Amino acid sequence: MSEATPLPGDNPGIAFDLLAEDGAARRGLLTTAHGPVQTPAFMTVGTAGTVKGLTSEAVRASGAEIILGNTYHLMLRPGAERVARLGGLHRFMNWPGPILTDSGGFQVMSLQELRKITEEGVTFRSHFDGERHDLTPERAVEIQELLDADITMVLDECTPFPAGEGEARESMERSMRWAARCREAFTRRPGYGLFGIVQGSVYPDLRLASAAALTAIGFDGYAVGGLAVGEGQEAMFEVLDATVPALPTDRPRYLMGVGKPADIVGAVQRGIDMFDCVLPTRSGRTGQAFTRRGSVNLRNARHMEDSRPLDPDCPCPTCADHSRAYLHHLFRVKEMLGPILLTRHNLYYYQELMAGLRQAIEEQRLDDFAADFAQQQAAGDLPAL
Amino acid sequence: MSEATPLPGDNPGIAFDLLAEDGAARRGLLTTAHGPVQTPAFMTVGTAGTVKGLTSEAVRASGAEIILGNTYHLMLRPGAERVARLGGLHRFMNWPGPILTDSGGFQVMSLQELRKITEEGVTFRSHFDGERHDLTPERAVEIQELLDADITMVLDECTPFPAGEGEARESMERSMRWAARCREAFTRRPGYGLFGIVQGSVYPDLRLASAAALTAIGFDGYAVGGLAVGEGQEAMFEVLDATVPALPTDRPRYLMGVGKPADIVGAVQRGIDMFDCVLPTRSGRTGQAFTRRGSVNLRNARHMEDSRPLDPDCPCPTCADHSRAYLHHLFRVKEMLGPILLTRHNLYYYQELMAGLRQAIEEQRLDDFAADFAQQQAAGDLPAL
Repeated sequence: MSEATPLPGDNPGIAFDLLAEDGAARRGLLTTAHGPVQTPAFMTVGTAGTVKGLTSEAVRASGAEIILGNTYHLMLRPGAERVARLGGLHRFMNWPGPILTDSGGFQVMSLQELRKITEEGVTFRSHFDGERHDLTPERAVEIQELLDADITMVLDECTPFPAGEGEARESMERSMRWAARCREAFTRRPGYGLFGIVQGSVYPDLRLASAAALTAIGFDGYAVGGLAVGEGQEAMFEVLDATVPALPTDRPRYLMGVGKPADIVGAVQRGIDMFDCVLPTRSGRTGQAFTRRGSVNLRNARHMEDSRPLDPDCPCPTCADHSRAYLHHLFRVKEMLGPILLTRHNLYYYQELMAGLRQAIEEQRLDDFAADFAQQQAAGDLPAL
Repeated sequence: MSEATPLPGDNPGIAFDLLAEDGAARRGLLTTAHGPVQTPAFMTVGTAGTVKGLTSEAVRASGAEIILGNTYHLMLRPGAERVARLGGLHRFMNWPGPILTDSGGFQVMSLQELRKITEEGVTFRSHFDGERHDLTPERAVEIQELLDADITMVLDECTPFPAGEGEARESMERSMRWAARCREAFTRRPGYGLFGIVQGSVYPDLRLASAAALTAIGFDGYAVGGLAVGEGQEAMFEVLDATVPALPTDRPRYLMGVGKPADIVGAVQRGIDMFDCVLPTRSGRTGQAFTRRGSVNLRNARHMEDSRPLDPDCPCPTCADHSRAYLHHLFRVKEMLGPILLTRHNLYYYQELMAGLRQAIEEQRLDDFAADFAQQQAAGDLPAL
């Protein structure tokens, strides 16, 4: 592991090596306890100890190096202590590579009537059985350590959108106090890291104050949270333009819950290194495919006798082995294989997009790549038969 | 293809080579237009153009050589003519190996209030949209030829159980007249075959009359139908004891819709060569696993922290990669991966059972194999932790 960027206490935590830059964009290498991650990276979401519908071999084959687990789901079922007794999340779900876990905050906050936030933390009732649970900054860190996450996220409040500046400031400042408590609770170990999360809604001053507060505490990486919640791409990019320059250059930057392919391209151009989003998996389950030519709805009747692959240029097994007519049929008769095959395709698409972005940065031609990407997306799907 | 057993008209149809015998049991090789099938064989059910939850690569990896498609489902969605325009069922579902299709009769008969049987055929309403369809012997053959099935089954009535002897005779005799019409309608092609179906409920005289009627017409293979419908294993074996000796020795024998592992072992001992059943796939989707030690319900709480594989001696990827605790978790939180992993295991189990039966026949030790099988099944699951 690189010793280039030691953290306080002389513990290397997670190494991040900057390999190339192109404008604000960065090409990097993250080194974790469970292996390397080439950045910019897209993290496939494996909510409850599984990427829905795929074996871990199939996830790996898509090009994924790191996956994301959800603390909220795992703390309820099967329970963090149980996962620890079973050897940790990697072993439990047969994913030997790096895992990032969220703090559970985002899901808990979205429970609305079932949760209550105080300075101490958040109290909520399980959506499974109504049982009451407490999630404090200290417990969120403990759970993620029990899961054996390579990257632990601080507990924060994802500020609702829209929020007035006063509400956003209050929420952000509490999240910063929670971040300091998480840093205190976190056990520093080589190859393991804790990421802080910048909040502050759409207010540049709050975002800068949040970035400054986190940098003063010191984290292995810095996430930008509270985006992709309805503010739109333009506002999201404005927040990134205001926030990213205030983050340390020698640490990875993670844009949480983003996003559509065009969001990712724009965020990479603005200096983001890591992403996660349920779009490729969730869309895959409902018949929506991502392709170079934009998104395609396989439920549409125009695919009924189309013997062409979803994307003739895609190297994934779904496009190599199956026609649009077959995929359409599977969704029409509600067969499990439809979601399986389309999720697999979408994960390949996202990973191939990330590989393209990484290569473009290495070759100092990211702006050309982004322009080509936009042009292809706008060109539209294959012509009707 | 072997020319050893020509059918009427000098067309070889489907070749069947008898490689070894052990008592009444047979070890054979079926040669179809889409490849060979070692018998005794278990045919995995791929109802609507997919083995539920598995890619065709995963099905093939389980050891499956031949799969079964359901005419009823495929004639409604996506439609036989559409499958033909898309290059046939093999290409449509990416299964290059042999396919047997049923005639649609079994599913149509079970529609109860939605169908009407006459001498001409059966009229029914689709369970999708209520649309009216006619299925005659001639149309059943035409549909299966459009699907490009290697083995076509005659349209018959699966006589309800229980049935009085008069009712069973009437039903069987109509099925024999339909079988003759199917033979007439079937296009003889090398590597493609038509199988007749013996009916007659639990009445030995009727079964013998049915076998004689079919043998007089002449088919590429002979199925025993109307069993595994509630009569119990003892009655089923009695029917086989009465029926199988009346079937031609140089043609494959197929016991339809059977069955549990112990049913298959007993039927192989009685001279059956081919089987199909939804048990391994359907049970896999509901958390029920087949193992050497009998069946195991993964939903049971005793598996919650069991880090052992489902079956320590099983070579399947599910047992190699995953614990009982993980499988239990997946079913508990209703994740798709649970059905996927357990279906995969069950298919390996069935194929391994068939491989064991084939080897035992070759080595003239089938009775010992059957005794060991029964003893292992009775021994029960792994001891609790």
